[in-house]
Amino acid sequence: MKLENDLYLRALRREKTERTPVWLMRQAGRYLPEYRAVRAKAGDFMTLASTPEMACEVTIQPLERFPLDAAIIFSDILTIPDAMGLGLYFEPGEGPKFNSPITNSKQIADLPIPEAEDLQYVMDAIELTTKTLRGRVPLIGFSGSPWTLLTYMIENGGSKTYAKSKALLYKTPELAHQLLNKLAQSIIKYLIGQIQSGASAVQVFDSWGGVLSPADFQQFSLQYMQQIVDGLKAAGCGDTPIVLFSKGANQNLTALSQTGCHGLGLDWTIDISSARKLTGDRVALQGNLDPATLYAPDDFIQQAVKKVLDEYGDNPGHVFNLGHGMQPDMDPEKVAVLVEAVRTYSTK
Amino acid sequence: MKLENDLYLRALRREKTERTPVWLMRQAGRYLPEYRAVRAKAGDFMTLASTPEMACEVTIQPLERFPLDAAIIFSDILTIPDAMGLGLYFEPGEGPKFNSPITNSKQIADLPIPEAEDLQYVMDAIELTTKTLRGRVPLIGFSGSPWTLLTYMIENGGSKTYAKSKALLYKTPELAHQLLNKLAQSIIKYLIGQIQSGASAVQVFDSWGGVLSPADFQQFSLQYMQQIVDGLKAAGCGDTPIVLFSKGANQNLTALSQTGCHGLGLDWTIDISSARKLTGDRVALQGNLDPATLYAPDDFIQQAVKKVLDEYGDNPGHVFNLGHGMQPDMDPEKVAVLVEAVRTYSTK
Repeated sequence: MKLENDLYLRALRREKTERTPVWLMRQAGRYLPEYRAVRAKAGDFMTLASTPEMACEVTIQPLERFPLDAAIIFSDILTIPDAMGLGLYFEPGEGPKFNSPITNSKQIADLPIPEAEDLQYVMDAIELTTKTLRGRVPLIGFSGSPWTLLTYMIENGGSKTYAKSKALLYKTPELAHQLLNKLAQSIIKYLIGQIQSGASAVQVFDSWGGVLSPADFQQFSLQYMQQIVDGLKAAGCGDTPIVLFSKGANQNLTALSQTGCHGLGLDWTIDISSARKLTGDRVALQGNLDPATLYAPDDFIQQAVKKVLDEYGDNPGHVFNLGHGMQPDMDPEKVAVLVEAVRTYSTK
Repeated sequence: MKLENDLYLRALRREKTERTPVWLMRQAGRYLPEYRAVRAKAGDFMTLASTPEMACEVTIQPLERFPLDAAIIFSDILTIPDAMGLGLYFEPGEGPKFNSPITNSKQIADLPIPEAEDLQYVMDAIELTTKTLRGRVPLIGFSGSPWTLLTYMIENGGSKTYAKSKALLYKTPELAHQLLNKLAQSIIKYLIGQIQSGASAVQVFDSWGGVLSPADFQQFSLQYMQQIVDGLKAAGCGDTPIVLFSKGANQNLTALSQTGCHGLGLDWTIDISSARKLTGDRVALQGNLDPATLYAPDDFIQQAVKKVLDEYGDNPGHVFNLGHGMQPDMDPEKVAVLVEAVRTYSTK
């Protein structure tokens, strides 16, 4: 389907755009009262995520409020481990958990590599949302990165030190690689399925890439994201932009920019001008306002938006975003101020 | 008192040393059974920290086990807010809390600036420990940084987003600066007192510097650590090495190295060779092994230690350390392996 607004895709391809496109990580979520209403109707998070009609509805909600330049399918980064049989669930007030987290090598050896059809509810949600959007804006598909999925599958709950995951890497690296390989292969199938179902771009969330040293990052995270980029290209999906976002891993931006991906997500702990220097003109950059800026007065938000735009300068390849996701206690009115500021200040 | 082992101080002054000195953040702590015994006797953390005989005992415990090159006084980074009247306490299994966290501007205006004598128990612990060490190794004094103390005083408990602290910075920057100024002035007095009581070097722990954008870091954290460096020099303490450790703030290493401090602490998310390039030959570097390496087999630890030493190369100004503190579930035997490896591989 021809897109009415393809700014986001053109920016990821580093083509000139008449203004900077903008979307926000977790733009569909608890800060919106209309989201909370659907969530309450669904009962639990997984019912919401796995019911295409409801996933489609909450995906589109933020677009009804704000003139955003992309939608991102409402789902979770942990759908693959769930499809592998770990049993994802959410305790109220806590992070995600698994009924059967990984605790031994036999489990890793026995893990299946799910096909896209094993995550049919995600494919259906993407198809329905693409149809419902009718080309208004591109729809983004996504997955967690192999390393990030590994940490959840091993830690099974929050961790400050990632002690169990790192012990796996250091004591039995061959087991870690076996697991990471299976995850990378699963993610390739999953993202190909999402693209075939209608996603116009895909993003890999490497939420915990930043807890690794540069050498460990290269070996246990980057290498497998490289597999994903290569796998998508080998499958003929090379025209669909791929964005990698390794939060807190700014020491690895140069290496990330050399994977052949189209864009890199940036957190807010680096100046976007420094990130440009580190990544040359190889990739588009997506970011990178501190999400906490949304707690500030309107004029502060406007100036902060302008600062990011000015720092990126008059170069192609910028997608405006926050450096991390929206928080439930944020005010939707502030999102309106942010989006308006991006449009105002970036229009050529 | 003349020191028998001054490797740590000479390394911080970037003098040639016959081998690389080593100490470990949180080297006195729960991973040691002898620490847990004293802690049990004390009943609660603050009794332990505020009783000079017990603080001295646990400070020296790791030196009795391992040939470490420095001791660090057993205390907490939050003693200053406690002395300001906020009432520090520790709930079992939780982080530190205050009875009277900062919730309004009047509290900030009314906060006193404590004198070193208002923290006499810390001065007494340092004096007693210096006496007890009899020049074996240098004793390190420390404080939290102004920004890091602010976050604890405002958030009063753990935070993922530092929403309250950042809202203070963005909505009422003048109040934030008033608070940060008071904290910097208090820390200067506190560290001067520690030096006069016997500390041979001081470290400022900016544990949450890494949650700020580079521009915010400059304005709300770095500027006040600069005040501390300048304040100590103005007070005639310029010969005592000052180490700044902003965890997660590697984008600001060059700026940190230009403050006039003697050394910078490094976390493990940057190669120490990259950190050397960013900091020139202006400062010594302290770090930077991933603490999770201590969960690995002995030969892995040895190779990881060698890698950090090799990367730093044959240059003056390296103090070996972890990139963050020891964890309670770590095995003391692994510390022995690490310390031995530093001594073996770094001896010229």
